[in-house]
Amino acid sequence: MSFTKAASDEKAIATIRCLAADVVAKSNSGHPGAPMGMAPMAHTLFSRFMNVNPAHSKWVNRDRFVLSNGHACALIYILNHLLGYKDLPMEQLKSFRQIDSKTPGHPEYGHTEGIEVTTGPLGQGFSNSVGLAIAQANLAATYNKDGFPLFTNHTYMFTGDGCLQEGIASEAASLAGHLKLGNLIALYDDNHISIDGDTACSFTEDVEARFLAYGWHVSHVLDGDKDLEGLFKAITDARNVTDKPSLIRVKTTIGFGSKQQGLAATHGAPLKADDIEGVKAKFGMDPKEKFVVPDDVYAAYKEIADRGAKADKEWTELFKAYGDKYPNEHAEIARRIAGKLPEGWEKALPTYKPSDDAVASRKLSETVLGKVADVVPELLGGSADLTGSNLTRWGNAVDFQHPSTQLGDYSGKYIRYGVREHAMGAIMNGLAAYGMHIPTAGTFLNFVSYAIGAVRLSALSGHRVIWVATHDSIGLGEDGPTHQPIETAIALRAIPNLMFWRPADGNETSGAYLVAIEAKSTPSVLALTRQNLPQLEGSSIEKAAKGGYVVVENESADITLVASGSEVAICNEAVAKLGEKGIKARVVSIPCFSVFDAQPIDYRLSVLPSGKPILSVEAYSTLGWSKYSHAQHGINTFGASAPAKELFKKYKMTGEDVAAKAEHVAKVFQGQTLVSPIELEAKLMKY
Amino acid sequence: MSFTKAASDEKAIATIRCLAADVVAKSNSGHPGAPMGMAPMAHTLFSRFMNVNPAHSKWVNRDRFVLSNGHACALIYILNHLLGYKDLPMEQLKSFRQIDSKTPGHPEYGHTEGIEVTTGPLGQGFSNSVGLAIAQANLAATYNKDGFPLFTNHTYMFTGDGCLQEGIASEAASLAGHLKLGNLIALYDDNHISIDGDTACSFTEDVEARFLAYGWHVSHVLDGDKDLEGLFKAITDARNVTDKPSLIRVKTTIGFGSKQQGLAATHGAPLKADDIEGVKAKFGMDPKEKFVVPDDVYAAYKEIADRGAKADKEWTELFKAYGDKYPNEHAEIARRIAGKLPEGWEKALPTYKPSDDAVASRKLSETVLGKVADVVPELLGGSADLTGSNLTRWGNAVDFQHPSTQLGDYSGKYIRYGVREHAMGAIMNGLAAYGMHIPTAGTFLNFVSYAIGAVRLSALSGHRVIWVATHDSIGLGEDGPTHQPIETAIALRAIPNLMFWRPADGNETSGAYLVAIEAKSTPSVLALTRQNLPQLEGSSIEKAAKGGYVVVENESADITLVASGSEVAICNEAVAKLGEKGIKARVVSIPCFSVFDAQPIDYRLSVLPSGKPILSVEAYSTLGWSKYSHAQHGINTFGASAPAKELFKKYKMTGEDVAAKAEHVAKVFQGQTLVSPIELEAKLMKY
Repeated sequence: MSFTKAASDEKAIATIRCLAADVVAKSNSGHPGAPMGMAPMAHTLFSRFMNVNPAHSKWVNRDRFVLSNGHACALIYILNHLLGYKDLPMEQLKSFRQIDSKTPGHPEYGHTEGIEVTTGPLGQGFSNSVGLAIAQANLAATYNKDGFPLFTNHTYMFTGDGCLQEGIASEAASLAGHLKLGNLIALYDDNHISIDGDTACSFTEDVEARFLAYGWHVSHVLDGDKDLEGLFKAITDARNVTDKPSLIRVKTTIGFGSKQQGLAATHGAPLKADDIEGVKAKFGMDPKEKFVVPDDVYAAYKEIADRGAKADKEWTELFKAYGDKYPNEHAEIARRIAGKLPEGWEKALPTYKPSDDAVASRKLSETVLGKVADVVPELLGGSADLTGSNLTRWGNAVDFQHPSTQLGDYSGKYIRYGVREHAMGAIMNGLAAYGMHIPTAGTFLNFVSYAIGAVRLSALSGHRVIWVATHDSIGLGEDGPTHQPIETAIALRAIPNLMFWRPADGNETSGAYLVAIEAKSTPSVLALTRQNLPQLEGSSIEKAAKGGYVVVENESADITLVASGSEVAICNEAVAKLGEKGIKARVVSIPCFSVFDAQPIDYRLSVLPSGKPILSVEAYSTLGWSKYSHAQHGINTFGASAPAKELFKKYKMTGEDVAAKAEHVAKVFQGQTLVSPIELEAKLMKY
Repeated sequence: MSFTKAASDEKAIATIRCLAADVVAKSNSGHPGAPMGMAPMAHTLFSRFMNVNPAHSKWVNRDRFVLSNGHACALIYILNHLLGYKDLPMEQLKSFRQIDSKTPGHPEYGHTEGIEVTTGPLGQGFSNSVGLAIAQANLAATYNKDGFPLFTNHTYMFTGDGCLQEGIASEAASLAGHLKLGNLIALYDDNHISIDGDTACSFTEDVEARFLAYGWHVSHVLDGDKDLEGLFKAITDARNVTDKPSLIRVKTTIGFGSKQQGLAATHGAPLKADDIEGVKAKFGMDPKEKFVVPDDVYAAYKEIADRGAKADKEWTELFKAYGDKYPNEHAEIARRIAGKLPEGWEKALPTYKPSDDAVASRKLSETVLGKVADVVPELLGGSADLTGSNLTRWGNAVDFQHPSTQLGDYSGKYIRYGVREHAMGAIMNGLAAYGMHIPTAGTFLNFVSYAIGAVRLSALSGHRVIWVATHDSIGLGEDGPTHQPIETAIALRAIPNLMFWRPADGNETSGAYLVAIEAKSTPSVLALTRQNLPQLEGSSIEKAAKGGYVVVENESADITLVASGSEVAICNEAVAKLGEKGIKARVVSIPCFSVFDAQPIDYRLSVLPSGKPILSVEAYSTLGWSKYSHAQHGINTFGASAPAKELFKKYKMTGEDVAAKAEHVAKVFQGQTLVSPIELEAKLMKY
C-alpha cells in the first residue's frame, strides 16, 4: 500500500483544527492545543487505516482507538462526529463539557458511543491499550482457523508526554514489549509541552531509546504537522512488525496554527477569539464562521465509515461460514460477544458444610477459580508476580506468552503481569473493554492501593474485573505493617460501583464469586485470607449474595456482633464465651457493604434491628462501621511484624477480647433502647 | 584509591551469608536468598565506602544506605549488627519478624536505629533515594562554602528486579536522570529471579539501556558473587561521575551457597536445616553452629564504625569552624538539624475577616506558602506538572535544577516533579527522611490516589510531608468524573497518623498549615478548592487547629449541620433558608477528623451534643460520617463534567438543597431525643 494524497486531506485536517478551537472556545474550558497538533496523525490514521463501523459501534473485530492523552478529547469527539456516530451530532460538539452532554471533559467508556476506554488520568489509556491488544491476541490464538481470520483488529493509541512520565505507562510498556504485542501501535505526540511549560523542565529522557530497551519497534516522524506521507509510512511499517509493539514518535506543534503555537498557553485554555479567526484564515476557512465542516470533508469521512461498514458486513459473513464449520466455537464466540455466561455455570461453585476443614480463603478462591475456569472460558487470570501466594493460577492453566518464549502461547489464559500492579489494573480494564473476557488477577490486598487509579476507573467505566486480593489484614503476619492493609477496606468500600468483598468462609467465598461474575458492569475486589478460616454454621452462597445476613440468631440477645471476613468466626467464639457469663449475643456477617446496602430496608433492619447495642468487629480501621453499629472494635493504627496469631492477640482480635469488649458494651447500654443506624435510615426513607 | 583485598573479606561475606540463612531459619519466615546473593556487594560498599557512625546514627552528613528490595532486610539488620548499632544485638537477629522486635519483616524508619527509610513495598526505596539525594544536593548548594564542604554524603541504594518493574521506580529514575543527581548510586541485584520464577516470564527488557535512556551512568559487574575488585571499581567509577546518577548492574546468584542457589525456592522461604549446614561447610564455617560471627569479622566492622566516628568528629570540628565564619548559616543549619522551626514562624500565617473577599483555598494556600517560605527556609515545594493549577510555587522561588540547564540551580526550592505523582510522594518521604526539609508538593486531590502507596508510608514512617491537593470535589468542574474525587476524603481519613484537611476558608487554611507544619511526625493532605470560598464569621486559626468547632451556635437549634470545606458556607446559606421557615439550625465545621477526634471527649460532645438530629453535609462519599451524625447528605456516585456551579445543583449541594434535606430530617425526628454518636463513645469511655 502506498500513500496517495487526497484532495480532502488538507481540508479535513484544517477542519479538525478549527473545530477543536471552536469546541473549546464555546465551552470556555478544555484543551485546544493537543487536538490541533494531533489532527494530521489522527486524520492519517483514520482515513487510511482505521476499521470501525459507526453504525454498529460494537462490531467485535473493529480496530480500537485509544486517546490516552484524554484531555485532548475534543479530537475524538470531532472525529466521531465526522464519522457519523449517532451520539455525536454537531449540537454535542457545541455542548462540550456541559451538563448531561455526550462530550464530557475526558472521554468516558459507556457514556459516549465510540469511546473504547475512559481516559484522562494519565497513563491509563496507554495501559488499557495493552489489555485491548492482549484480548485480540488471545481471541485470535483461541478461535482463528485456517481461512477464518476472525480476530485481526489493531489497537491504535495516541499518547503524550504526560502519559509517558507516568509509572503505569512504563509498567505497561515493559510488559507489552515482553509479550511482543505486534497488534499494538502507539503514536506519541511529542510536542515538547506539558502544563508546567517546556518538557525541558522535567522530562528530558530519550523516549525512543527507552522503548527500544523495552523491546518495542520504534520510529519517528519529524514533521508531524505536515508530513502525511511520513505518518502513513510509519504506521504501515509498524503494522508490518508483527512481533513487537510499535511506538511512533511524532514531532508536532501544540496549537498548530495559533499565534501561540508551540507554547503551553495553548494547552489547557481556550484560544482567544481573534486568534481563532487567524487560525481559520490561515487554513483557508471563513474566519467569522464557527463549527464549519465542508461537505467534501463529511464525504471523505463517510467513505471511512462505509469502508468500516463493508468490513463489518464481510466479517459477519465470514463468521457465519465459520459457524458452519466450527459450530461449537461459533456458539461460544457468539455467547461471549453477547456478554452471556454459560448456562448453569454457577453450579460449578463449591459449597461447604460446617464440618468441612478450615481453609484459607485464598485457597478457597483457588478452588473456585479452577472450577469456574473449566466452564467459563472467558476467565483470564494472572498475578503481579505473586502467583504462589495469591493462588490465582488454576491447575491446567497455560501462560499467555509469545510462543517464541516457549513459556506458553497466546491462547493461554494466565498472565504473568510482573510486579506491575497499576498497569495490571488498567490492563484488566482494557481486557474487559474489549468485551469478551472476565479478567481476574491477584496481588496482596495492600498493593491494590498501588493500582487504585485504575480500580476507580474500573468502577467509573463499569468494567467487570475481579481482584484476587490475598493476605487480608494483619492476618498477613510476619511481612509486617508495610504489607498489612488497615485503611484499605474502607477506601475500597467508598468507591462507587465497586464491590469490596471480605468473605468469612467457603460458602461466602463462593457467594462473592457468584455475584462478582454475574455483575456485568461492576468490578469487585475480594479480600482473602492467608490464614485458615473455619466453615460457618449458617452460611450459604445465597445468604452471602445478599451482602449481609444473620449468622447466629438469638431473639433475646443482649448485643449484636457485626463483622466481616476472619472476624465472623472470632465473633462466634466470643458468643460462646459470653454465654458462659450469661450474656446472649447474635452475630451478623456483612461480606459486602454495597451489596447489603442495596437490599430492601426491611431486610436490613431485620439483620440490624433497634433495641440492644450493636458492636462491629473488624481487623481494619473502624471508620465507616458507625453506619451499622453503636460501638466499634477494630485497628486504627498500623499493624506489626509477627506471626498472625500473635498479632490477633496484640490487637485484641481474639474471641476472648471481643467477648470482653461486648460485655462492656452490653453493660454500658443495659436497660437502654438504642436506635439502630439502619432504623434512622428507614425513618428518613419512609417518612 | 585502588582495591586491596583484606584477609577478612571472604570471611565477612561468608558470615553475612550464613547469618542470613540462620536469621530466616530461626524465625521460619522471610527471604534468605537475596541477602545471601547481595552479601559481596554489601560488604564491598560498607567496608570501602560507607561513612556512618553507629554510635551517632543521626550524624547529618552520613552516607545514606537504602535497601529498596526491603524483603532482603536480614541483610541490613546483619550489617548493622556487625557495625554495633545498639538496636541490633545478636538477640535481635534471633527475634527476626517476632512480636515487638527491632527486626520486623521489612525495614521501618523510626522503628529501628540505622534504618534510613521504610522499604518493602517495591519501588518505594528507589524513589526515597532520589529524595535523599536531592536533599543533600540542595543543602550542599545552599550551605557549603569554600573550604567548608559540610554536605557531601552519598546515597547508596540496593534494588532488585521487583523494584525496577514498579512504575514508581521508573518515574523516580527518569527524574533523577533529568536532575543529574551525581550523588546517587544504585546497585541493581540482577539475580534473574522473582516470586513467579525466572524473570524470563515477565521481565525481559534491557535494564541497562533503559537507564541510559534516562540519562544515568550505567555499568555492570558480571560476577557479583565473587568479584569484589569489580564491585569496588564500579562503585569508584560511579562516585567519579558527578553529573549523573549511577546504576551498577550486579549479576548475582540468589541464595549463593545453597543447594538451591539460583532458584526461586530460596527467595521467600527458609532454607532447610541440612542445606544451611552445607552452606556453612562450603564457606568454612562450623556446620553445627548458628549465629556465629568470627572475631576478625567483628574487628573489621569495628574499623568501619571507627572510620565513620572519625569522620563524624572531623565534621563536627569543620562545622564549628564554619560557625566562626558564617554564624547565621551555622545557626540555621543547627536549628534545622535539631528539627526546630524558626521562633515565631506562625506569625507569618495570614488571618481573615468575614468581610474579606471570597477566595479559592488553593489561592489561600499559595498566600500561606509564600509567607511561610520567607521565614521557614526548610520548605521545599513542587508540583507534579500542575504548578499553575496547584499554585504551589511562591513568588520568589527558584527551581531546583542542575545548573547546566540554566533553568535553576541546586539551591532552588521548587521541584518540577513532572507528571509523576507516586514518585513525588516517595521522593518527599526521602526529603523528609534526610531530616532538614519540609517537603510540600501539589497535584489534584484525585491524583493523590496515584501516590497512595507512598502516602501510607509517609504515615507509617512519620514523615512530615504536606500534599497541596487542589481541585477538591466536584468543585473541580468541567474536567469531569475522571478527575473528581469522591472516595478520596474517606480513604485518606482512614490512614492512621495522617491528617486529611479540608479547610472551609482563609482562617481554616492557615490553621491547617499551622498544624501540618508543627506536626513533626505526621503527614498532611490539604484538600483545596478550585472555586472561591467566602470568609466565615466565626472561624479562626485556633478553632480550626482543633480539627472541629461550632461555626454557628444556636442553643435552641432544631438540627445541627456538620460539614467540611466548601460545604460549610453552603450550610450557612441553608441556616438562613431554614430560618425563613422557623427552623433553627447550628453549624459545625470539621476540617480534620483525626485532629478533632484527638480533642477531649467533653469538647467533642459540646460540638456535637445529643438531643436534636445531626445532619452531615459533604460533597464526597457519605461513608464515615455516621460517626458524627444521624443522617448524611453527600455524593455516593461518581461526578460529572460541567461547570462547578451546575454540578453543585445537580448533586443537590446548594443552600436550598441542604435546607430541604435538613427540614426533612428535623421533621422526621421532631420531638425525639437522639443520642449523638459522640455520646455513645463518651459512655463507653467513661463507664
